[in-house]
Amino acid sequence: MIIVYTGNGKGKTTAAIGLAIRALGHNQKVCIIQFLKSTKFETGEYKFLKSSKIEIYPMGAGFSWKGKPENHRDFLSKAWNLTKEKFKADYDLIVLDEINNVFNIKNFKTDDIISLNDLIDLISNASFNVVLTGREAKPELIQIADLVTEMKFIKHPYQKGVLATKAIEY
Amino acid sequence: MIIVYTGNGKGKTTAAIGLAIRALGHNQKVCIIQFLKSTKFETGEYKFLKSSKIEIYPMGAGFSWKGKPENHRDFLSKAWNLTKEKFKADYDLIVLDEINNVFNIKNFKTDDIISLNDLIDLISNASFNVVLTGREAKPELIQIADLVTEMKFIKHPYQKGVLATKAIEY
Repeated sequence: MIIVYTGNGKGKTTAAIGLAIRALGHNQKVCIIQFLKSTKFETGEYKFLKSSKIEIYPMGAGFSWKGKPENHRDFLSKAWNLTKEKFKADYDLIVLDEINNVFNIKNFKTDDIISLNDLIDLISNASFNVVLTGREAKPELIQIADLVTEMKFIKHPYQKGVLATKAIEY
Repeated sequence: MIIVYTGNGKGKTTAAIGLAIRALGHNQKVCIIQFLKSTKFETGEYKFLKSSKIEIYPMGAGFSWKGKPENHRDFLSKAWNLTKEKFKADYDLIVLDEINNVFNIKNFKTDDIISLNDLIDLISNASFNVVLTGREAKPELIQIADLVTEMKFIKHPYQKGVLATKAIEY
């Protein structure tokens, strides 16, 4: 089954983490690959999951795509190679966290590293559950998905000037 | 902070479970009380979390509200008493899973057990993070919440005739 969590609201990554926990509870084998998310910054889920039976790999250079494009290209290339390797193994659930955003980076071509068709080929042939998260999922991904939820922004403390809150945003 | 995950799409409970894991990763103290969800049926999250540091209490008679109303009233009363007790303790995060649905049960008055005003009083005075999940959150709850996401149904395998899938739906 291909599951997509998209939209501009909160809860996409956490819903994927929750599904991972649900799968683990059923003794399933789970792998989470986090695109774009920095390896230098430990989120709450990473701090906990890294010592659990769930494999979790933050594989990004962070969300800022200003800086040095080549640096980001290296991270993306490594993340995609790891993804292809993991898809050959025997998992019940693979989460590709934030992967939707990979196809939405402005002024930054990633097609030579990972194209939408590459991703579609990979996940269409998987015999296990796959979760894709990130804003503005491409229509082609929504089309092949079995289950799609849009996490829609209704209200956020940013509106009141509150910055990212520990244990809520990360 | 009061967080509401509502809407007709998948991902509300799993997003709450994900936040619980995120909080646990930051060494926070977490309690999950599951309204309506049956104590007789072990979900994946329950199977895993019951042996974790996160407290989880399924406190319902199941989602079918046909059967014997008095039975459901007893479960609801116990769930609400536990909730009030837990709100006096020293948590960083309390999840009231499916509580929105408590106020949406057709032909079933619950006001004498738990009223919307009781809930608003309780959560408004909490000094920690509170997550409320369930479809059709009452406008009064959305109004006092800090962060609200609508999980919006886009596509679901039910449409293709697939029934609830282990490790995805429960």
